[in-house]
Amino acid sequence: MSTSLLDDVSTLFPEWFTPAQTARAKTIFYKEMALRCHHFYGGKMMTVPKAGIFSPNDVNIWYTPGVSKVSTTIRDNPLSSFYLTGRGNTVAVVSDSTRVLGDGDVTPPGGLGVMEGKALLMKVLGGLDAVPLCIDSRGPDGTPDPERIIQFVEMVQHSFAAINLEDISQPNCYRVLDVLRERCEIPVWHDDAQGTGSVALAGLINALKVAEKSLHDVRIVFIGAGAANTATARLVITAGGDPDRIVMFDSRGALSRNRSDIEENPAFYRKWELCQQTNPDAITDLETALKGADVLIAISRPGPDAIPPAWIQSMADKAILFALANPVPEIYPHAAHEAGALVVATGRGDFPNQANNSLGFPGILKGAILARARRISDGMAITAARSLAHFAEEKGISPERILPDMSDPMLFATEAADVAMQAVTEGLARHAMRREDYLALAREEIMESHALFQHLMDEKIIKPPPESLVQECLRLAISQV
Amino acid sequence: MSTSLLDDVSTLFPEWFTPAQTARAKTIFYKEMALRCHHFYGGKMMTVPKAGIFSPNDVNIWYTPGVSKVSTTIRDNPLSSFYLTGRGNTVAVVSDSTRVLGDGDVTPPGGLGVMEGKALLMKVLGGLDAVPLCIDSRGPDGTPDPERIIQFVEMVQHSFAAINLEDISQPNCYRVLDVLRERCEIPVWHDDAQGTGSVALAGLINALKVAEKSLHDVRIVFIGAGAANTATARLVITAGGDPDRIVMFDSRGALSRNRSDIEENPAFYRKWELCQQTNPDAITDLETALKGADVLIAISRPGPDAIPPAWIQSMADKAILFALANPVPEIYPHAAHEAGALVVATGRGDFPNQANNSLGFPGILKGAILARARRISDGMAITAARSLAHFAEEKGISPERILPDMSDPMLFATEAADVAMQAVTEGLARHAMRREDYLALAREEIMESHALFQHLMDEKIIKPPPESLVQECLRLAISQV
Repeated sequence: MSTSLLDDVSTLFPEWFTPAQTARAKTIFYKEMALRCHHFYGGKMMTVPKAGIFSPNDVNIWYTPGVSKVSTTIRDNPLSSFYLTGRGNTVAVVSDSTRVLGDGDVTPPGGLGVMEGKALLMKVLGGLDAVPLCIDSRGPDGTPDPERIIQFVEMVQHSFAAINLEDISQPNCYRVLDVLRERCEIPVWHDDAQGTGSVALAGLINALKVAEKSLHDVRIVFIGAGAANTATARLVITAGGDPDRIVMFDSRGALSRNRSDIEENPAFYRKWELCQQTNPDAITDLETALKGADVLIAISRPGPDAIPPAWIQSMADKAILFALANPVPEIYPHAAHEAGALVVATGRGDFPNQANNSLGFPGILKGAILARARRISDGMAITAARSLAHFAEEKGISPERILPDMSDPMLFATEAADVAMQAVTEGLARHAMRREDYLALAREEIMESHALFQHLMDEKIIKPPPESLVQECLRLAISQV
Repeated sequence: MSTSLLDDVSTLFPEWFTPAQTARAKTIFYKEMALRCHHFYGGKMMTVPKAGIFSPNDVNIWYTPGVSKVSTTIRDNPLSSFYLTGRGNTVAVVSDSTRVLGDGDVTPPGGLGVMEGKALLMKVLGGLDAVPLCIDSRGPDGTPDPERIIQFVEMVQHSFAAINLEDISQPNCYRVLDVLRERCEIPVWHDDAQGTGSVALAGLINALKVAEKSLHDVRIVFIGAGAANTATARLVITAGGDPDRIVMFDSRGALSRNRSDIEENPAFYRKWELCQQTNPDAITDLETALKGADVLIAISRPGPDAIPPAWIQSMADKAILFALANPVPEIYPHAAHEAGALVVATGRGDFPNQANNSLGFPGILKGAILARARRISDGMAITAARSLAHFAEEKGISPERILPDMSDPMLFATEAADVAMQAVTEGLARHAMRREDYLALAREEIMESHALFQHLMDEKIIKPPPESLVQECLRLAISQV
């Protein structure tokens, strides 16, 4: 895995491969590499002391008898646990593995690779420690029970600075998040929902600037009403979008007051809220809704034919499209542009405008944690979106570049400082500082984390996988296409 | 915290201090150092990637789309989670913080300093990753509920290779351990009980060699019938001790079939088992039990006057004493020797023969994990004791030296290999290897962990705390005595 080899994976495959063949080979290659590299390293994350033992007697400080003073100090002042133990910088990534990426229910341990990946990104991008906790949420009847997840998180919250919920199936994810946000003393964040919403909103803000339209005036259609898109709609409305100009579709049609099927199922209360808030004319068909619409945000089913070009053609001038299905967007960007879209964002890194959750959670959680916020409000999520949009704008935006570049570590430090300040403004911070102090602290911690990771690779303490492993994966990918 | 300064803490205090004053000053010094050093480092443990990102494209391997192959592979073969994710080397240190060291119930976050200390020792001594999980076990009535701890661990077991239970109050700890040992697919270890028992048994084996007595023939008195001492008694009996020659005392008297108060409380079933097994003559008083006894194992209340010298004087020739109360043993070693004891062990590092749990759990858990054992049997705990005893014997044993020296990393590798082989013998291993392979693997992983920790300190990535911090703690300790 030398830098040169993987830097442009497309060139690794035969020239006579069609683009479709290369795309297939790439996916097989990444999956095979994933399997073998995860085995090679035995996973992705480890625990390491951050405190030294410079003399054998130091054990008396880190353990008994000295540590007793830490126990009693925390007992008498629970908030001191945030600076006397690793708690203050540590996030639990909690999932019941019932809806893991594109693979659905993969059994409790099946989500560990993804949650450990999240922990890796948190460390590298946000300078945060993170622990994957994949749990069995099934009750005696064998089905996932949201109450068990709630009780689990309530019990474990005392060991963490924040909880990142992930890949919990619908409708459990709504109740789990909303109950825990109320009950927990620390931020509980559902990255699939709030994270996606926050990054999509950031992209939308800049796309509207590029299109010279205003959030309050545009007509927005949402296709897909899962956790991610309902959270996106809520954030868009809270940030200034006009609910009267919003129509959202699920697999059974448009959300409106007439959707008794949603009203009747209390587990879908978040969807029902949107039924009541949006689509006042009770439009029922997509054709009507899309005609002249300015924005289409789809998080539905993988494409590339889930959105036909005709839909885009019927939209307003300078249409904006978010086609966020994975692994293949609902329509390919080139097709959307041909149909008249001005801005197209997808979930993919190999097209422009990747709406990637990794732009959000490392900075948002970092900011919430620096402020020792009790929770992450929608206001803080919107602030994160505005911070991302502003950061990108400063570097210059265009239809092909509405979101910032993840490789700039200042992005996450800035986002963290803005989020922390919003927590202060909303009275949610338990550790209020000035913006420049939050920024300096976030920057220092993120830079330290970067430097340590780079050092471990430079010193070959983290070794690159053997060249032969990469070659085998390549051969396999080519032979299977 | 230069090496020279803390290497001999006693010399830091005024010469005109009496020994008692120096002892008090030392304790204050360690506690104050603990508070300030924990603050200085922000706790003791962090998470760090063990997999590299050598090209931006590597994210496609560690996260989506590649990681999908890890999810589905684990879904189809749960055991693969042990080598495809960090799970395979990671221990959860679970406590409800209701009985933390000498401080009792310190509220859920109050135990974090101790559990993080445990995680530090696991990493440094056993090359194991470990995560502190201090949980709130209180039910609606505000009292700790063992069923909640059981459900919590059952839910989280899929993310870990083993569970280390710690500092859970009586009688909950018995049921929690015994139920979880049956129900979980991974080892559940209660270090306060099994760990203490294992190390005490190791010491007893060598003490008996020194005294030229045999385990089956000696009369043993236990003072204290908490989780630690009842587990010790059980291991001693399973290892060959004669229950007919054993008498155990709790705060209400000797355990025997006549103790209806214990029989009536089902939560104390472990104590009731010992009531039925031991003390066939139903001796009721300590004087009778101790007269001519060969061994006294006390884990009762802090001394130094909890065991009067007269008790030792009434014992047999070449008496063996374990006075394991913390922070002060039930009787000081010099007093016990004057009263005729041949071998004296305590929990303290500043006397000879420290019976320290840290001799046990890093090697025992390492071995169980290398063998991917389903659980840690009493047989494996006894094997660990024999391994420790044998390791010490090879280096030479004496009345002042019945236990091995923790500073030799081969100790833990050897212990791990012996424990793993016992798992194979008992049919508990899911990853059977030859002893030399277990030994080589344990040695390599422990050495790597040592080397990384040392490297971080040598490179000042882990910096020593400022000299001024140490001086302030010293001044404070001296002024408060």
